[in-house]
Amino acid sequence: MISWPTIYHVLEETVPLYVAMIVAYLSIRRWKLFTPEQCSGINKFVAKFSIPLLSFQILSTNDPYDMNLKLIFSDILQKSFSLLGFAVISKVFCVEKFDWLITGLSLSSLPNTLIVGIPLLKGMYGNEAVKLLSQIVALQSLIWYTLLLFLFEFRAARGMSTTTSSETINEAELGTPGPIQERHEEGQAKGVSARCYSAFCFLLVVCRKLVINPNMYACLIGLIWALISFRWRIHLPSIISNSIRILSDGGLGMAMFSLGLFTALQTKIIACGAKKMLLSLGIRFFLGPALMVISSYAIGMRGTLLKVAIMQAALPQGIVPFVFAKEYNVHADILSTAIIVGMMIAVPVALGYYIVIDHPRL
Amino acid sequence: MISWPTIYHVLEETVPLYVAMIVAYLSIRRWKLFTPEQCSGINKFVAKFSIPLLSFQILSTNDPYDMNLKLIFSDILQKSFSLLGFAVISKVFCVEKFDWLITGLSLSSLPNTLIVGIPLLKGMYGNEAVKLLSQIVALQSLIWYTLLLFLFEFRAARGMSTTTSSETINEAELGTPGPIQERHEEGQAKGVSARCYSAFCFLLVVCRKLVINPNMYACLIGLIWALISFRWRIHLPSIISNSIRILSDGGLGMAMFSLGLFTALQTKIIACGAKKMLLSLGIRFFLGPALMVISSYAIGMRGTLLKVAIMQAALPQGIVPFVFAKEYNVHADILSTAIIVGMMIAVPVALGYYIVIDHPRL
Repeated sequence: MISWPTIYHVLEETVPLYVAMIVAYLSIRRWKLFTPEQCSGINKFVAKFSIPLLSFQILSTNDPYDMNLKLIFSDILQKSFSLLGFAVISKVFCVEKFDWLITGLSLSSLPNTLIVGIPLLKGMYGNEAVKLLSQIVALQSLIWYTLLLFLFEFRAARGMSTTTSSETINEAELGTPGPIQERHEEGQAKGVSARCYSAFCFLLVVCRKLVINPNMYACLIGLIWALISFRWRIHLPSIISNSIRILSDGGLGMAMFSLGLFTALQTKIIACGAKKMLLSLGIRFFLGPALMVISSYAIGMRGTLLKVAIMQAALPQGIVPFVFAKEYNVHADILSTAIIVGMMIAVPVALGYYIVIDHPRL
Repeated sequence: MISWPTIYHVLEETVPLYVAMIVAYLSIRRWKLFTPEQCSGINKFVAKFSIPLLSFQILSTNDPYDMNLKLIFSDILQKSFSLLGFAVISKVFCVEKFDWLITGLSLSSLPNTLIVGIPLLKGMYGNEAVKLLSQIVALQSLIWYTLLLFLFEFRAARGMSTTTSSETINEAELGTPGPIQERHEEGQAKGVSARCYSAFCFLLVVCRKLVINPNMYACLIGLIWALISFRWRIHLPSIISNSIRILSDGGLGMAMFSLGLFTALQTKIIACGAKKMLLSLGIRFFLGPALMVISSYAIGMRGTLLKVAIMQAALPQGIVPFVFAKEYNVHADILSTAIIVGMMIAVPVALGYYIVIDHPRL
């Protein structure tokens, strides 16, 4: 049974995240320190520097020759189910098709494994869980965040092809150009015609944009270095690892700070409204773990491995998808609400799952 | 004699600082990531959060019952000499009297003890030097940064009393209000008359501003906690220390990043011109150590203690005075140049001093 020291240990790791967020919230609402433009600068710093460097750190320190294949396959299967499911749902019910495909994937299968997951599951299942979770974290950074970016860029490229002149005026009024606007301006400058938006050109544009994304590079270099490092037992010279650490060290705090700034700039903490909040929490805490149960059973996972897989699927919403959603302006309010409210109920939910799946039959 | 591993160890600690700075520089000059307004947001984050939290960390972990009194007195004496000297020089030669008093004090007596000093002097004099340096770091945070802020606020308050209506228009054109403008607006709102600017009112205004400065609070709370903690051997609960660390961890990197942003926004790396650069380097690397030699001899310091005191006075310019100078808009270009050029020549200068003062007669 989970113990009080375990719960306290989990709080030790999660409360600081709230503190960073609350400080950011107060710095806008009470102290009026930052303008919205200054906030977007901090958010950009997180997306372009902190997170890519964190991704590199995780990937370069995870042994790619010692992965648990069952866990990886069930993780891939769960996310594929989610992707397929939300693609169908979006196609049938929604007007803005890509928005809910992206948000659904983020909500159902990209939890906060690194910050909340590792301490929480270490308390429950010991160091074995840490080893398993760092593989999931590595996969998240390498495959799933890249896929997420791919989808964001794909959506932006599609948006460009259907942009009307009236939208151009709206964009001009918005001030600083975001990814979509920049792309649109490029498109206009190059006179990109409608014909070019065939499937092939689409992919070219998406890939070109993806290649200049710092997170993509960080992940690739991280994996290549891990393959070299763990093959020949070489470590990064501390002059390089210190250079990475100096900017990545504060990364998680900055990501939470950025989330707090975003929250403060919304009219309410539950930025997306109660209905969408309940929907997002349902997807995060029920659909996600349910898909993981199906996938894990299909792969044939049992015992602690299965329990860890389910528990990590029931963690609160991850921060990285929110940062991207903010950068690309796709349902950032829903993800922000899912993170804030989700983290408030994270520990009770985790304890609930722990008691349920601790049944000897599993 | 200083060894090659010592030099490498010093580079391990200092190169990452340059990396953070160069990344920031490139992010403006090459990638055009941040607008000036976004940069000022990042700089504000550093001044209001990272540095106060770092100050707290240093003060709360330094034993206030085990200080080296000789070192403290010679440190105070050196800074008093500097203060007095620059007050006289400013009075006699300069139009903007307070500007050079503040900048002179910063340049001559506030070096980069924490980041460059500790690893450099540890390599030279071992762990004894670390213990001594952390006392100087604690004093810097508690007394000298507070005095520096006091001088900045005093200068701002003086500026307010002599503000003419034409300046009000200029300030309105500048956009976001800085410390001076805010103060001026307050002054206008309260109809503060010229009579009130007597010595007493002056001090009241300065103290009131100082009390709401987060660094002042951080230092005071840090010292009070250290007095409690080391008296009764109590540690901060990790839930609190983690909450502080989550935002202070990236502090030094962010401060360097902020410096890089500032550098990139200037027209050249040597922002203040060659003449002022040479003057600032002269003050930093010759006047500062010279004043320390006089003070230390006057106090009666000998041996390793004396050597550590001189070596720490010959370190490159500290970052915190730059951050404040940027915040209050007083000679930030000179301090930025002194840091950048000073850090480039830091290791050769340190080695030069090391060889000179290693003479057995000292």
